[in-house]
Amino acid sequence: MTISNYIQENETRFLNELYDFLRIPSVSTDPKFEPHILKTADFLAAKLQKAGAENIEICQTPRYPIVYADKIIDPNLPTVLVYGHYDVQPADPYDLWTTPPFEPTVRNGKVYARGASDDKGQMYLHIKAFEAMVQTDSLACNIKFMFEGEEESGSDGLAWFVEKEQERLKSDIILISDTGMISNELPSITVGLRGMSYVEVEVTGPNRDLHSGLYGGAVANPIQVLAEMITKLKDENNRITIPNFYDKVAELSAEERAEMAKIPHSEEIYRADLDLKTTDGEKGYSTIERASIRPTLDVNGIWGGYIGEGAKTVLPSKAYAKISTRLVPNQQHEEITQLIANYLQEIAPQTVTVKVTPHHGAVPAVVSTKSIAYQAASKAYETAFGVKPVPVRSGGSIPIVPMFKEKLGADSMMMGFGLDSDAIHSPDESFGIFNYLKGIETIPLFYQYFAELNQ
Amino acid sequence: MTISNYIQENETRFLNELYDFLRIPSVSTDPKFEPHILKTADFLAAKLQKAGAENIEICQTPRYPIVYADKIIDPNLPTVLVYGHYDVQPADPYDLWTTPPFEPTVRNGKVYARGASDDKGQMYLHIKAFEAMVQTDSLACNIKFMFEGEEESGSDGLAWFVEKEQERLKSDIILISDTGMISNELPSITVGLRGMSYVEVEVTGPNRDLHSGLYGGAVANPIQVLAEMITKLKDENNRITIPNFYDKVAELSAEERAEMAKIPHSEEIYRADLDLKTTDGEKGYSTIERASIRPTLDVNGIWGGYIGEGAKTVLPSKAYAKISTRLVPNQQHEEITQLIANYLQEIAPQTVTVKVTPHHGAVPAVVSTKSIAYQAASKAYETAFGVKPVPVRSGGSIPIVPMFKEKLGADSMMMGFGLDSDAIHSPDESFGIFNYLKGIETIPLFYQYFAELNQ
Repeated sequence: MTISNYIQENETRFLNELYDFLRIPSVSTDPKFEPHILKTADFLAAKLQKAGAENIEICQTPRYPIVYADKIIDPNLPTVLVYGHYDVQPADPYDLWTTPPFEPTVRNGKVYARGASDDKGQMYLHIKAFEAMVQTDSLACNIKFMFEGEEESGSDGLAWFVEKEQERLKSDIILISDTGMISNELPSITVGLRGMSYVEVEVTGPNRDLHSGLYGGAVANPIQVLAEMITKLKDENNRITIPNFYDKVAELSAEERAEMAKIPHSEEIYRADLDLKTTDGEKGYSTIERASIRPTLDVNGIWGGYIGEGAKTVLPSKAYAKISTRLVPNQQHEEITQLIANYLQEIAPQTVTVKVTPHHGAVPAVVSTKSIAYQAASKAYETAFGVKPVPVRSGGSIPIVPMFKEKLGADSMMMGFGLDSDAIHSPDESFGIFNYLKGIETIPLFYQYFAELNQ
Repeated sequence: MTISNYIQENETRFLNELYDFLRIPSVSTDPKFEPHILKTADFLAAKLQKAGAENIEICQTPRYPIVYADKIIDPNLPTVLVYGHYDVQPADPYDLWTTPPFEPTVRNGKVYARGASDDKGQMYLHIKAFEAMVQTDSLACNIKFMFEGEEESGSDGLAWFVEKEQERLKSDIILISDTGMISNELPSITVGLRGMSYVEVEVTGPNRDLHSGLYGGAVANPIQVLAEMITKLKDENNRITIPNFYDKVAELSAEERAEMAKIPHSEEIYRADLDLKTTDGEKGYSTIERASIRPTLDVNGIWGGYIGEGAKTVLPSKAYAKISTRLVPNQQHEEITQLIANYLQEIAPQTVTVKVTPHHGAVPAVVSTKSIAYQAASKAYETAFGVKPVPVRSGGSIPIVPMFKEKLGADSMMMGFGLDSDAIHSPDESFGIFNYLKGIETIPLFYQYFAELNQ
């Protein structure tokens, strides 16, 4: 039987298995979810077994386990290493979800749940594609699976694992579905990713919370100071003011920018989707450029003083912010983190003390459209979707891509099936049923073309 | 037996009763504490009964009850209306307390608990002073008690009650202990209070939380915008930039400022107490002036985005801040609230929508040192402490003082026994055992002198 027939016949089961997967709240950023992370690893191991994988192992790491499995059918065939992450972002604020984040619900052709698109849905479709190839005897490459449980919190365990398992993880290409497409009518392949530097800032004024009536006006308020420091991070043109921040930024040629300008984009639709009167960003660049080829800085969280119900007249001792920057090729995240820390100390007034704590970082990456992997992926999308996909640079970061290149010497191919409207990292995250099934159909085609092109 | 003897003999019981009072978490700003508020009212009614008060009534209001009681001994004697509040500020952050906020603990001569000084301790000493006068047959005035349970959240019920109970609350002076003294060696009487305007600001950008990697740099971040708006509230001289904010501020004469400058104050000690390198405030004014005769603005709370453990790369839909101003004589809080709201809308960029919600406000007030009440209070402190008290302007607000003047036509006399080091509104709030007992000793002297001076 053909792969497509097999997929059709097993559609309902493929979907129900995904829903079971989504029900486990595998949040990696908050330690209290640890038991669920471990349960998820067991779930995956069992599913890989049923799908026909071999050498299945739940590999311990300093933090959360990595689920490994493989099927080596012929040493002469190319080997594909499939990577994905089974952990998810925190789901809060819970009250903004239409249906609970860990009770997958289907509405208008999409399944709503935390991790539906990032990355459980996009990851699980690889296991189902694998099952389909095995059951229809059409496996065209050797396959290795490596699924981690802490991508949303730095992938430390993965780096450790890859370092010591270079032999076992040897492959010709690493396949990742953790990105999006322009639309279901116009598939796209991510050829660029931004890097990241993420820091937490603690501003301390007086040694204790004070009564704002008795001390207000005579003692500097840490919230006010933090606000003024954040304001100093950008200028009136939305350029980041951190000294030397732009020094190593790879500027695109006029040709490359002209090429990008062809990507379909409507400011009206973009604004309407977000209920915005206007977009805003670095002067001299388009919305698409601002969100892909340019480095950015965002305050991801801020808190201080009394944030409960009602009014409390406190002049707080401390104020905090989580600040991240997205980096483009040639920017080094360790260096940027240092620049940010130095600048924050430099602009901190005498009235406070400032502590900067680095969180995880990520290196930017770019993929060549000339590569065999890109060609195979492009043909696979074209066959499955009936449209030639376009290459795009994504604003997001997949920290592990450059790490794989360094430790395993292999390039990564990013075949994403998500959409911007999936609202990943937000309440009401979703993944299209169409996209899930289309992914299961597209992946085997990639293996077929990748094997052919490698001959 | 003399009053002082009676106080000495009953010292231990007086203290234990206070501790029982402090054990009830009567937080009025958070609805979930309501049962405790009601329990506190019952506690007070019972204690007033035992102390010898009459016509005790727990009076219902639109919100929290007011406990009333009186003892009218002779229509020809002046009548004193004692006001106090039995509610307290929220105790969070709980983890910053050395011992739990609602388990009063005595260390180095002070009792530590939320409300110890503001206002349960200072309020309860009036009931014990009353008991002492009744038991020693030395009551010199008619007395009325009015204790409310929502001073920390706007005193709406009190305003409602005072409006309809003007006859029952008739008095020659209103006596309040809800302020501080300079030190136990140099008592002081508060003759000025700042008013207040308190608003909550909600800044909304995109209609949902976004992935900062995919949208960052192209969509304005509400936290960044809020920070920039807060920065625009003050200039480089720490002057508030809200248009017309200072228009009605009553400026002090050179003489008055020279008089204030005599109040003992050490910048070193002040800074050391707060672990600050430097103080900071409106240019051209001293620390004491900044915290008493000048209007101020403080951000009492700020929050937005991801504030949990670890790192989340979100570009939030909303950011919030609680902002309050302290007002001086002639500034109208309703007017200031409007000025703040208008200015926040005016400086809000196109990229967001801003919602401003007013919380409670308060009118500034000043008391004359020539009044009989002030003279009686001054003599009472002098007799009890052996030192003539100095008049000071406090930076805090007691919203109800001007309200009493308007509705009841009576002035308020603020006889505080607290100290700055009591850390009211902060973790580890405390009240000196010395101050509590000294207060019980001082109050009867006030009644005596007030009766004499009224003859």
